[in-house]
Amino acid sequence: MLTYFRCADGKIEHPLEFKKELYLGAPEAFHWIDLEDPTAQETAILEDPFHFHPLAIEDCLSDVHHPKVDDYDQYIFIIVHGIRFDVPTDQFITRELDIFLGPNYLVTHHNGPMRSITSAREQCGKNLQAAMPRGTDFLIHQILDQLFEHYFPNLDSIEDKIQLIQVEVFESATKDTLDRIFALKRDVAQLRRICTPQREIVHRLARGEFKVISPKAAVYFRDIYDNLYRIVDASYAYQDMMQGTLDAYLNAVNNRLNETMKRMTVVTAVLACLTVITGIYGMNFEHMPELKWRYGYVWAMLLMVALPSALVLWMRRRGWI
Amino acid sequence: MLTYFRCADGKIEHPLEFKKELYLGAPEAFHWIDLEDPTAQETAILEDPFHFHPLAIEDCLSDVHHPKVDDYDQYIFIIVHGIRFDVPTDQFITRELDIFLGPNYLVTHHNGPMRSITSAREQCGKNLQAAMPRGTDFLIHQILDQLFEHYFPNLDSIEDKIQLIQVEVFESATKDTLDRIFALKRDVAQLRRICTPQREIVHRLARGEFKVISPKAAVYFRDIYDNLYRIVDASYAYQDMMQGTLDAYLNAVNNRLNETMKRMTVVTAVLACLTVITGIYGMNFEHMPELKWRYGYVWAMLLMVALPSALVLWMRRRGWI
Amino acid sequence: MLTYFRCADGKIEHPLEFKKELYLGAPEAFHWIDLEDPTAQETAILEDPFHFHPLAIEDCLSDVHHPKVDDYDQYIFIIVHGIRFDVPTDQFITRELDIFLGPNYLVTHHNGPMRSITSAREQCGKNLQAAMPRGTDFLIHQILDQLFEHYFPNLDSIEDKIQLIQVEVFESATKDTLDRIFALKRDVAQLRRICTPQREIVHRLARGEFKVISPKAAVYFRDIYDNLYRIVDASYAYQDMMQGTLDAYLNAVNNRLNETMKRMTVVTAVLACLTVITGIYGMNFEHMPELKWRYGYVWAMLLMVALPSALVLWMRRRGWI
Amino acid sequence: MLTYFRCADGKIEHPLEFKKELYLGAPEAFHWIDLEDPTAQETAILEDPFHFHPLAIEDCLSDVHHPKVDDYDQYIFIIVHGIRFDVPTDQFITRELDIFLGPNYLVTHHNGPMRSITSAREQCGKNLQAAMPRGTDFLIHQILDQLFEHYFPNLDSIEDKIQLIQVEVFESATKDTLDRIFALKRDVAQLRRICTPQREIVHRLARGEFKVISPKAAVYFRDIYDNLYRIVDASYAYQDMMQGTLDAYLNAVNNRLNETMKRMTVVTAVLACLTVITGIYGMNFEHMPELKWRYGYVWAMLLMVALPSALVLWMRRRGWI
Amino acid sequence: MLTYFRCADGKIEHPLEFKKELYLGAPEAFHWIDLEDPTAQETAILEDPFHFHPLAIEDCLSDVHHPKVDDYDQYIFIIVHGIRFDVPTDQFITRELDIFLGPNYLVTHHNGPMRSITSAREQCGKNLQAAMPRGTDFLIHQILDQLFEHYFPNLDSIEDKIQLIQVEVFESATKDTLDRIFALKRDVAQLRRICTPQREIVHRLARGEFKVISPKAAVYFRDIYDNLYRIVDASYAYQDMMQGTLDAYLNAVNNRLNETMKRMTVVTAVLACLTVITGIYGMNFEHMPELKWRYGYVWAMLLMVALPSALVLWMRRRGWI
Repeated sequence: MLTYFRCADGKIEHPLEFKKELYLGAPEAFHWIDLEDPTAQETAILEDPFHFHPLAIEDCLSDVHHPKVDDYDQYIFIIVHGIRFDVPTDQFITRELDIFLGPNYLVTHHNGPMRSITSAREQCGKNLQAAMPRGTDFLIHQILDQLFEHYFPNLDSIEDKIQLIQVEVFESATKDTLDRIFALKRDVAQLRRICTPQREIVHRLARGEFKVISPKAAVYFRDIYDNLYRIVDASYAYQDMMQGTLDAYLNAVNNRLNETMKRMTVVTAVLACLTVITGIYGMNFEHMPELKWRYGYVWAMLLMVALPSALVLWMRRRGWI
Repeated sequence: MLTYFRCADGKIEHPLEFKKELYLGAPEAFHWIDLEDPTAQETAILEDPFHFHPLAIEDCLSDVHHPKVDDYDQYIFIIVHGIRFDVPTDQFITRELDIFLGPNYLVTHHNGPMRSITSAREQCGKNLQAAMPRGTDFLIHQILDQLFEHYFPNLDSIEDKIQLIQVEVFESATKDTLDRIFALKRDVAQLRRICTPQREIVHRLARGEFKVISPKAAVYFRDIYDNLYRIVDASYAYQDMMQGTLDAYLNAVNNRLNETMKRMTVVTAVLACLTVITGIYGMNFEHMPELKWRYGYVWAMLLMVALPSALVLWMRRRGWI
Repeated sequence: MLTYFRCADGKIEHPLEFKKELYLGAPEAFHWIDLEDPTAQETAILEDPFHFHPLAIEDCLSDVHHPKVDDYDQYIFIIVHGIRFDVPTDQFITRELDIFLGPNYLVTHHNGPMRSITSAREQCGKNLQAAMPRGTDFLIHQILDQLFEHYFPNLDSIEDKIQLIQVEVFESATKDTLDRIFALKRDVAQLRRICTPQREIVHRLARGEFKVISPKAAVYFRDIYDNLYRIVDASYAYQDMMQGTLDAYLNAVNNRLNETMKRMTVVTAVLACLTVITGIYGMNFEHMPELKWRYGYVWAMLLMVALPSALVLWMRRRGWI
Repeated sequence: MLTYFRCADGKIEHPLEFKKELYLGAPEAFHWIDLEDPTAQETAILEDPFHFHPLAIEDCLSDVHHPKVDDYDQYIFIIVHGIRFDVPTDQFITRELDIFLGPNYLVTHHNGPMRSITSAREQCGKNLQAAMPRGTDFLIHQILDQLFEHYFPNLDSIEDKIQLIQVEVFESATKDTLDRIFALKRDVAQLRRICTPQREIVHRLARGEFKVISPKAAVYFRDIYDNLYRIVDASYAYQDMMQGTLDAYLNAVNNRLNETMKRMTVVTAVLACLTVITGIYGMNFEHMPELKWRYGYVWAMLLMVALPSALVLWMRRRGWI
Repeated sequence: MLTYFRCADGKIEHPLEFKKELYLGAPEAFHWIDLEDPTAQETAILEDPFHFHPLAIEDCLSDVHHPKVDDYDQYIFIIVHGIRFDVPTDQFITRELDIFLGPNYLVTHHNGPMRSITSAREQCGKNLQAAMPRGTDFLIHQILDQLFEHYFPNLDSIEDKIQLIQVEVFESATKDTLDRIFALKRDVAQLRRICTPQREIVHRLARGEFKVISPKAAVYFRDIYDNLYRIVDASYAYQDMMQGTLDAYLNAVNNRLNETMKRMTVVTAVLACLTVITGIYGMNFEHMPELKWRYGYVWAMLLMVALPSALVLWMRRRGWI
């Protein structure tokens, strides 16, 4: 699907069909062509009239897997990643957004709808004077701003996950807990790997390194940079938290071993104590007064309650158990 | 609340109402406008007469969460963080201070009173010749100096906490100790994350990178840089100490397991030893002289005291327990 | 074996015998000489007519063991590594490809056939207009592109290995598991060590740092750079995964110890419990009614089933086992 | 205490009272003023006639806690640290030496006597032609050289400590060992933190970055740089050694647990073995020939020596204990 | 011992006595003076006629302990380290080689013979046209090439050591194994510390940073750089291997604990099982048919073989032991 906006004389023309004449006949206007799951026929416009570099077109139409910005002098080619944290499977799903930014045009490409693009498109569609972008560099700013703004709910999801697993570690760790800790650690590492290069890219955009972005617009990218700074910062903090969670888990396992040992001490000691008592009255001495007592048996039973209890109390007082 | 100081002819005028005329009519004077929990009406002055960049205004009025300095050529926009270590909850509470610094004006914004601002305001209010700031760059130096000076009591608090937990680890570790260690580790990591970028910012101020800060004033920022250097240095040292504390804790857990095992050895050995003695005199041999002794039973009892004692002594001599 | 291609007037001449006259007589043509396991006679052409630097020739003919690019002004000398993950022995086997790249010639040297060279040679051999390289810099791009493209199946192999070992750790760890984990960790580290410097080399080629690579061709190397970026990124991710696997393994060992301890608790407790019962009825009290019961023996046996069962149930209810 | 040396016409004048006239009247001479625990009156000379920057004076008179070099164009202000390893308390004690270095003067400030200053002062006092410093930059070189030379005995002390603790870990680790290991680790980390910035400072002095140090003198600072290089290198090596010591300690704890377990196995097995034998002859079968033997009891006793011994031998042969 | 070579008119003169006239009279010739364990008289030539910087002379004659290159404009002063891995003591022994390199002279100093110097000297001694160095920069290249070439056999020694210790860890770890692992780790870390700065030095030589090394000669140092690259790379790989070995060792200790626990389970269970049986037939019930059987005793003995065996089999089937 190809959506075409054209802005001339300060007015945005409603989505209309992209025709080469419309584009070529209006170098003073600016154009936004959004390619969403385009057909081969639609992608042909990348070659004509835009004449983008074959490599950039190839990168645009396939998945490159890492964010980047390439400067082709007349235009720049940007790849950024939208993310969605899929809660059921505990995985980050990344979506590539490919952007060609020229002095008077913006071409975006993505598979499936993207919220940042949709919201920018809607604003253009309404053709409101206030929301009207003042140039391609401002429009791209708006799209990227939206894109990275959508990272934050995902950060919240992952933070919830971390807190859940921390409670689980301290209260009811099961066999799967470690698995889930590792999965979450991997997610957090992935988040960091996704965001760090994008922060670098936005930093370059904000520094005014590319001539298609006017100094006036470049200032606005600092805003996005701040957001990415926070995201990367958060991902480092999450990493620390996950490391702490892992340490706590491993320590909990160790503590359980300790507990098991203590219980074993108690059970063994109590039973061995009973054995000693029965052993005593099982001795065959001729002169053992208890054996002839009427309530000798009861006496032995009482001993078998009293002595182990005393032993347990003694161990408890010494803090052994 | 908006507080307005105006310094002209080397005299500071008492807090007076901010009027556009007063500001515009005196470019040779210098002005300090402090916005504390300002109303929307008060914040309007950021747009007129100051005409700050919309992005900077937005950053100023909302929370940006990380310190930064943005250069807008005519003025710079600084965000720094005041910290307070909340002892009951064991958490660092950060407060943002937003600063616009121009050649002849200083605009500060914060929510709630800040000690560094209050003390600077008081000095200005007293209008003492000695305390009179000699320019906006000297005034901002004074404010930042105070702000970072207030970090030190917090460092002391955290150092006390670390020492308390170290004593706890070695003397009476409980279930919560590990939790508290992790919380403190997180605090220390947060302290480092807060201070490192601020040190960088002050370094840039001290280097005379911005033209609104005169070389003569820039020298003074070295002083603040030294303080931040010490703070960051301390936070690294704290991190080492906390890692050591964690290692000590985990080792203590291990040692306790060892102790538990040793006690178990002793208890088991003593009781098993008793069992053997009772077993011996429970054997049914026809020819067992002890069984017929008058004091055989007493003899057995004495054996049951003597042999385990000997066993324990032997184990102790060999250093087993 | 020496294979010689010559491209003049836009046509590639079929592999023909390399003669000095052919090369010297056509500075406007471009030449590709591929040396595969060359004889001493064949390698002599490096000295005459090419007059390469003696050091470069020495590096070319021996194994240098690390990738590099050396600039000799008139030409550059590149060493890159092809890899193959040998599944049976779990080892990366690297193969050196030595390349001399001049303005109108390309000399490649390798021991044994290399897939990237072979495929480039075949394309040249077909002399198809479409596949015809447009210059030595485009030809080298094609070769390197192929070379690094062949890394990906090896990445897949190693990823499979990692997944297999992860399943093994959680389900049926044996004595060899740790060995295999270490071997795989070593492989992953080696992969990173092989790829990181090569990424740097391709980065320099893409940056247009060398004059024998035209700016137009340099752009194409970005593509290869992206691939190497992905490979290095993957190798870091693998490293994290292997560290996680190692931690999981060590934890599994610890858990097994815990399990062993629990089982021991149960077995010991049950048997000790039985001993106590037999001990009780082995006591010699004159007044023990059970001893005279007709089914006293059966009663004792029943007790010896009931009590241990109750004990086990009790321990299970308390979550001890 | 203020000590004043003055060097004019290649002669050093004996310590004399500092008078403004003496200093101002001789710009062609060079002057060394050493302030040791100065009175307020004496420190006044920093303001007049030297007119140092107020910040530098403040830093000079108070403790700054980290080494630095500040360039004030006409002069540089250096803070370096002398160290002393206090063996009884196992702590590094640092002492600040504040230095103002101008084209024809050197002002040093310190609390309490410093060996490096004392030795330089003595040489000046002797007014020997050979030892006569050839300029302030050579004099400061001599002082710093002495200062860092005094680090080496402290390194030896710490190295001795490390070796002592390593022996202790392997031979007689007690409860305090871990404490001492942590203390030593902290010392080593502190040493590194003290020396790394000082190495940087000396590197800048040696690079001829400051105009008050002539290129001819700057070369001499390389010598000090080499010493600091060695010190930092050693502190890294110590850090590795301490990490190794900690690992060895933790492993020793683990091994002790293993030993404890083995001993427990032996004691338990031996006693359980005895119990079995007594149990056998405690059975009430009518037909048990041993019970009627004359020396049955002795036989049982012999069994109770022989069987456990056999068991222990068997376990030893299998390498269990 | 002082050896003097002089090369004039393309001919190397046989070792001859160094005379000031010979050197000063031939600025167009080039000179190599090798000082091996020189007398004070011989070292005097460093001052006259060479007039080297006093600091460089001091560094040359004493041990500096770290490699470096100092640029004195007219000449450079280089310190490099030869190594020898002393197999019996498991230690690297480093030897310093001090080099002064000027436009037409080379002065080397070392204590004791060095193989790299000896072989260069022999080649000069033979005065063969082919082996004749073409300048001091080529001569120094040859010496350094030899020096670092001699590192490789030492790498092999250390690699052998690592493999031996790995086998030892998995097959027959003793008390000393950990000691040896730590020693080897220390060696590997030392190797890295020795080689990394030397790689940097050679990198600077190869980059043509010093004017006494001609661009034509500088190219040759790339070769040495490649060797040092490999050595440093190997030392990192060794470090990984040693860390893996340490982890494996610690895990082996843990596994042994697990084994010990399992054996204890078996022994305890078997003996406790026997105790139960003897306990049963030691009960005093009036109606216990087995007690009156003729072969009751034998029956009990058979039970005491059968039941424990069954227990062991059951535990083995469940995978407990």
